[in-house]
Amino acid sequence: MNDPIEQPIGVFDSGVGGLTVLKALREKLPFEDFLYLGDTARLPYGTKSAHSVTRYALQAAKLLVDRRVKILIVACNTASAIALPSLLELFHPLPIIGVIAPGADVACQTSVSGKIAVIATESTVRQGAYHKAISCIRPEVSVVSIACPLFVALAEEGWIGGPLVEGIIAHYLDPLLKSPSAQKIDCLVLGCTHFPVLASSIRNVVGPDIALVDSARTTATAVKHELRIRKLLRETQRGDGKVRFFATDGADRFARVSEIFLGKPILESDVEIVDL
Amino acid sequence: MNDPIEQPIGVFDSGVGGLTVLKALREKLPFEDFLYLGDTARLPYGTKSAHSVTRYALQAAKLLVDRRVKILIVACNTASAIALPSLLELFHPLPIIGVIAPGADVACQTSVSGKIAVIATESTVRQGAYHKAISCIRPEVSVVSIACPLFVALAEEGWIGGPLVEGIIAHYLDPLLKSPSAQKIDCLVLGCTHFPVLASSIRNVVGPDIALVDSARTTATAVKHELRIRKLLRETQRGDGKVRFFATDGADRFARVSEIFLGKPILESDVEIVDL
Repeated sequence: MNDPIEQPIGVFDSGVGGLTVLKALREKLPFEDFLYLGDTARLPYGTKSAHSVTRYALQAAKLLVDRRVKILIVACNTASAIALPSLLELFHPLPIIGVIAPGADVACQTSVSGKIAVIATESTVRQGAYHKAISCIRPEVSVVSIACPLFVALAEEGWIGGPLVEGIIAHYLDPLLKSPSAQKIDCLVLGCTHFPVLASSIRNVVGPDIALVDSARTTATAVKHELRIRKLLRETQRGDGKVRFFATDGADRFARVSEIFLGKPILESDVEIVDL
Repeated sequence: MNDPIEQPIGVFDSGVGGLTVLKALREKLPFEDFLYLGDTARLPYGTKSAHSVTRYALQAAKLLVDRRVKILIVACNTASAIALPSLLELFHPLPIIGVIAPGADVACQTSVSGKIAVIATESTVRQGAYHKAISCIRPEVSVVSIACPLFVALAEEGWIGGPLVEGIIAHYLDPLLKSPSAQKIDCLVLGCTHFPVLASSIRNVVGPDIALVDSARTTATAVKHELRIRKLLRETQRGDGKVRFFATDGADRFARVSEIFLGKPILESDVEIVDL
């Protein structure tokens, strides 16, 4: 384990939503090992203050850094929006990638009309994180952010399709989609790690002409790029990459709900409970 | 403040849902002073393990006990289900009342058919708390419990009526209401402090023949009874009762969301942030 390339990739989230990021990372980086930490004792971060989110994120990151990860992924939009500068400072020179910048990058590359919408948690919207990140790249772009807190509960229930789900999505998005001034929006950023599991239903509501930017996939692409330029990428197979799961509470629920986001089951016995 | 009757009533919850209990308490006990603590840094309790819920509840209770309350109300179904024995032991001889027993009592008095349904959070359902409490009083009664986690998100969004809300309620309750064996259910316990704000919509879904037991109101009645037999009840007016609000995180969100549950606005400056 002295060769940095052999070290695992650390991923943390407030809970299970970040497993959509882990899923995308494993698809993109099949030879890598991963440590995934869900801070389930203190989820959700999305309704907590900036002070608390920063404190929680630093504690979660420390557990993974202490286990010698070669790169740290903040697979939580709220923590990425709020805590990334503190994390980068504290753990310098470890590479750390959040989910906001990759999504903002791709949205800026994708949008032709220059009108982008972001759906996220209350906290991410309040922080204006995507707005800031997009404005840095394309200052002329207009960004509308909509908090959709009910989507998190829907996703965790595994309730991801059907007329009621689409009705709830339309309730949040119709004011945007049906406003005359917003008709030129051509890009919708799924700015919460829970939301990719609702992507098909969101597609049904917004129609075929709006590009959906999935921050899990865009982050996986950014991580691969970062590992390559730092010469930390495992390019060849030596058996399948392994994943170890840590949670701060409720291994049973973590295992049960995780399948929705990871696309495959986890056993309760595979989840190690840790105290931060 | 040396006269115990002059001491305030302590109420704690994982967040804002317990404000429905505070509202019912203030209506029933208009001359009393209250301290309300919402453990917003660690909400929701309903998806956390029993170990964590007990630890959080003991810390929350201690803050109120240190401020010399004359009675402690556990205005959180999850904490009542899990932590009440530990609280009673640690803070003996302080009177402590949870929200489960009063709701179970009234359900047992109300049901003629002997078929009772309970809707609650995942954790309360998993603990079987209402089932146990009802079985102690009327062992012959059958109890069906349904976890409705989406209701919490609906309530906190202030999204409490309309076809979509009733559609979501029906999604959870229709299997119960439309099962032939369940047709004699005549009593539905709202076993989560968030749910009273959805009562009108729940009534529209279940129809007029099923009694709704609101654990906020039943708890307020139980508290008044307990204060009277302990000679701790303020019977006469000396100005309106006062309320002090404490939260462990996010005074702004606490103030904003609280109006839904309390029925009247709270200013952010009225919420004192405390560390447990």
